[in-house]
Amino acid sequence: MEFSLIHRIRRRAATRGDVVLGIGDDAALLRPPVGEVLVVSADTLNAGVHFPPETGAADIGWKALAVNLSDLAAMGATPAWMTLSLSLPAADADWLDAFLDGFLALAAQHDVALVGGDTTRGPLSIAVTALGFVPDGAALRRSGAQPGDEVWITGVPGEAAAGLAQWRLGEPVDPHLRARLDRPTPRVAAGISLRAIASACIDVSDGLAADLGHLLDASGAGATLELARLPRSDALAALTDAARWGHQLAGGDDYELCFTAPAVQRERIVQALARCATPAQVIGRIEPDAGLRLLDPQGKAWIPATRGWDHFAATVP
Amino acid sequence: MEFSLIHRIRRRAATRGDVVLGIGDDAALLRPPVGEVLVVSADTLNAGVHFPPETGAADIGWKALAVNLSDLAAMGATPAWMTLSLSLPAADADWLDAFLDGFLALAAQHDVALVGGDTTRGPLSIAVTALGFVPDGAALRRSGAQPGDEVWITGVPGEAAAGLAQWRLGEPVDPHLRARLDRPTPRVAAGISLRAIASACIDVSDGLAADLGHLLDASGAGATLELARLPRSDALAALTDAARWGHQLAGGDDYELCFTAPAVQRERIVQALARCATPAQVIGRIEPDAGLRLLDPQGKAWIPATRGWDHFAATVP
Repeated sequence: MEFSLIHRIRRRAATRGDVVLGIGDDAALLRPPVGEVLVVSADTLNAGVHFPPETGAADIGWKALAVNLSDLAAMGATPAWMTLSLSLPAADADWLDAFLDGFLALAAQHDVALVGGDTTRGPLSIAVTALGFVPDGAALRRSGAQPGDEVWITGVPGEAAAGLAQWRLGEPVDPHLRARLDRPTPRVAAGISLRAIASACIDVSDGLAADLGHLLDASGAGATLELARLPRSDALAALTDAARWGHQLAGGDDYELCFTAPAVQRERIVQALARCATPAQVIGRIEPDAGLRLLDPQGKAWIPATRGWDHFAATVP
Repeated sequence: MEFSLIHRIRRRAATRGDVVLGIGDDAALLRPPVGEVLVVSADTLNAGVHFPPETGAADIGWKALAVNLSDLAAMGATPAWMTLSLSLPAADADWLDAFLDGFLALAAQHDVALVGGDTTRGPLSIAVTALGFVPDGAALRRSGAQPGDEVWITGVPGEAAAGLAQWRLGEPVDPHLRARLDRPTPRVAAGISLRAIASACIDVSDGLAADLGHLLDASGAGATLELARLPRSDALAALTDAARWGHQLAGGDDYELCFTAPAVQRERIVQALARCATPAQVIGRIEPDAGLRLLDPQGKAWIPATRGWDHFAATVP
């Protein structure tokens, strides 16, 4: 049965000119471009941990790739190839076809070729390794933020978390929030456009506060965020400020880019992100003192209840 | 808790000169050598499917990498980097340390750097993606076997399967057979030494008959094997010929290389494999007619009871 699933996947997988040998041998043969470094990310989605159990197969497929492309985006990389290790409770061809609908739709958007992997029997788990490139020396890292740099966020963080909160409470989930939870948009074009501009970058998967914290630790710096500058959206309008900030700072599953840049780059950034239709907002400033400080609209310190999303501590539901 | 596990892994992971940026950012940055193609393999081990549930953590770690290095070996590739996606039922630091003992011991033998991955909570599952290189045009494939070529096998297939059979019957398991099941030796040096010599190659993970069958399908050819030429070992001496051949043809988990080459290459192969201390044996011949034919010592057709090991059909125990 494993072979028929693999054939099903193989039949539908697209290829690229730099794939010398794709699925079907013991390993794939790939031709990396000269003068670029290889960028490799591996992230796994497990049922009940990374998505609600009733999430549709196509959405699971989309998200399994999106979280990996988001990691490549945070490095400023152009994605190229991926492997898929899929554990399934049963060899269910209909489920697999729907999974591939979502997985391969996002892959096609970014011209990513599936070059290998395996299917095994076991509890639902999707391990993807994504590979891409960035010109030598041009990769974005977490470690380059300097005091005085501005802190930016793409999109509207907190929407996925707000949707998850509605789902957990048994409320009807707003369709826009549900789409943000199930079909995150990896900011690939934005990452590429920030290559020569941003001083540091990270993708926000575990919550803005936690992930910005990683960027600050790597950069040996601190930051102050002005909560009044966190972007709102219609879908978040019904929430109190405190509830919204909680989702935006600690919610997770945003897959937005949080990046830093000197203030003199502001106009360049606005233009670069406009070209790829990616909204973004300055939300704070890097400072020499370690730690993350949050200011409410009155300029007073604000302490959130939780700081992040721990994949070992948090369970869905 | 996830972060402390990742730090534990990161602390112990070795690096290499071609790792520009290793574990700790959103993705790794790697510098592929010029003039070589990248070779990528992804294979997953799940508890209860790919190893007996009481297998020690260090053995699981070793095997999770070995099965991937075996795929690279079958391409003639030199391994370089790997990612690890580890699902664990609980954040058990002692288990993780023992797992890393085995995983990183094999990695050190082959100078493979762990460059990324993640840990998540879930049923025990280990998804590894291994990356390596081979000079452009020199990769071994499944598809090059020609009628008249000899069929070779490295080592002694069937030992892992014989050990597994003892374990399933509740018998005391021969320590040599158990070691072959738990700590397979990926034939990396042998694969490299066969680069310019073998016409086709595959690693034997699902049983010699099934995997040679894949090589034959890819090459558009058939073969006859002489069962009398299958290598024996002291550990298999107590078995009847039929039982031994059954394990050798259909057992799986060998991680030996099955390869083909013109008869005129025989002496070169013997010398090349002697240099890397890899035993190997001619066991048959490629023929134009599709299919795999088995001859017993009297030259009569022999039909095995089963043909392979299907990870969806087979469960341990």
